[in-house]
Amino acid sequence: MMTKVGIDLRGGDHAPTAILEGLRLAKPLLKDQTELHLFGLAEDFLDLEEGPWKTHACTQFISMEEHPVKALQAKPDSTMVRGLYAIKNQAIDSWASAGHSGALMVASMQALGLMEGISRPVVVSLFPKLNGDSIAVLDVGINVDAKAEQFLEFAELGTAYAKALMQKPDPKMALLNTGTEPSKGSVVYQKAHRLLQESAYSFEGNLEARELYDNDIDVLLCDGFTGNMVLKQTEAFYSIAQKRGLQDSFIAKMNYENYGASPILGVKGKVLLAHGASGPEAIKSMILSAESFALANFAE
Amino acid sequence: MMTKVGIDLRGGDHAPTAILEGLRLAKPLLKDQTELHLFGLAEDFLDLEEGPWKTHACTQFISMEEHPVKALQAKPDSTMVRGLYAIKNQAIDSWASAGHSGALMVASMQALGLMEGISRPVVVSLFPKLNGDSIAVLDVGINVDAKAEQFLEFAELGTAYAKALMQKPDPKMALLNTGTEPSKGSVVYQKAHRLLQESAYSFEGNLEARELYDNDIDVLLCDGFTGNMVLKQTEAFYSIAQKRGLQDSFIAKMNYENYGASPILGVKGKVLLAHGASGPEAIKSMILSAESFALANFAE
Repeated sequence: MMTKVGIDLRGGDHAPTAILEGLRLAKPLLKDQTELHLFGLAEDFLDLEEGPWKTHACTQFISMEEHPVKALQAKPDSTMVRGLYAIKNQAIDSWASAGHSGALMVASMQALGLMEGISRPVVVSLFPKLNGDSIAVLDVGINVDAKAEQFLEFAELGTAYAKALMQKPDPKMALLNTGTEPSKGSVVYQKAHRLLQESAYSFEGNLEARELYDNDIDVLLCDGFTGNMVLKQTEAFYSIAQKRGLQDSFIAKMNYENYGASPILGVKGKVLLAHGASGPEAIKSMILSAESFALANFAE
Repeated sequence: MMTKVGIDLRGGDHAPTAILEGLRLAKPLLKDQTELHLFGLAEDFLDLEEGPWKTHACTQFISMEEHPVKALQAKPDSTMVRGLYAIKNQAIDSWASAGHSGALMVASMQALGLMEGISRPVVVSLFPKLNGDSIAVLDVGINVDAKAEQFLEFAELGTAYAKALMQKPDPKMALLNTGTEPSKGSVVYQKAHRLLQESAYSFEGNLEARELYDNDIDVLLCDGFTGNMVLKQTEAFYSIAQKRGLQDSFIAKMNYENYGASPILGVKGKVLLAHGASGPEAIKSMILSAESFALANFAE
């Protein structure tokens, strides 16, 4: 049986050039059973070389500056809308885009619907740890005004993610916070701590950002504002190390080009979001993570 | 005229030993006109060597685990309360402690009162930048549930700080946020952006965390939760670089032991807070930053 992975050729600051180039880089690394489904304008396919892919010609695409809701209404034949409905219709198993994150979010909810018990989608990102393992951090971008109750949804989705994609049958979870004591943090974080403590999850308490890369936690929960901040500060650190000429295999893992795309959890379908600035290397990683996600036993 | 700097011998995880050791390290580096005022228990002074200091024997101290308000009520003769009243009575020019940050905050407000137009104190911390300059980030710890209107107070205090202590007559200010567009971030950050835009401050818009160490901004505004997070993630970077054996003069600046104590702005008096885990090196830096702050023309 084929694994069908949908790719948005018109998503990202450097689309379609960077996407087509990333496709060439990913091609030799794909599994035998993988079939890519490319959603682009007809002109994007003109010079396309032979490969394990099928093309889907669309007449529209959503650019990075558009208003998400308006763009989706005005562009039913855009690559993004077409790709997401392809998941819904089970024509593909996963879908990845480096395009407009807000539009991808709204379109995912509209096309696929939310999982039971989930009020909004969540983006998860893997951070490297010194021990060679990774920590899944969520939310890293959508729920910037998360309520305490949503942290239980993050816990649910994070646990499922760690089980399906991190080979952690009993994932350890913590709350990112300003101190280890339950009384630390904002009103929302104090309440989230209490709710997690009372929940059935394997909750280890608060984790401070100073331990972000060196801990024994598998799943770290935070609101989308804070998660986006720690993600971007990690990029800052990688960038500094580059500029200072520091070569290190651990710091290299902080490069977003290497960690691939971030799954959007909570929608009924496997959708991944890549960095808008993605170049060919990052797109290659995006395609490979969309392939892994397609193969993961996550949906139930 | 003497510069009188008050030091809490009983503040911090390693007090009084680390404080006394830091005192010895700072001694040869103090300016000729500086006189340290040491607040400790009588026993702390038994083995004290000669130096440019005066001792103030107290009978109580506040430990790291106590409830701030209760501790302050129960311990009027604690080193912290005595030190802050010494500022109020103009017996000293500045006061520094590595002790209980919550107690220090409450005690500062009680003993000294707030500056006009300021609703709560704010902690400022200097972050190193690649260009050799620094960026002042505030708030880094107190106002974890800051309202949008408080960002105007942060702007007022940050501007005054940059003028008095960073030699920036016309400081450039930005808002730490998840993207550069005004619509980015949480409800509070969107409103804070608008208020700052409408204000008379030199506001340059949003700055993303990926630019934290490489930008042309002097003063960066954020709530105390986010500020504490970026401060601790900076510590995480330093710690990783150490563990990976990466020697670099820029990364070395991320070591909290080098950047000294953080001024608490907004109270009527010069109070500084150091890291609770401070060892002798960090205490040396704390004493030197308390000396600089005492000399700065900040009060008006």
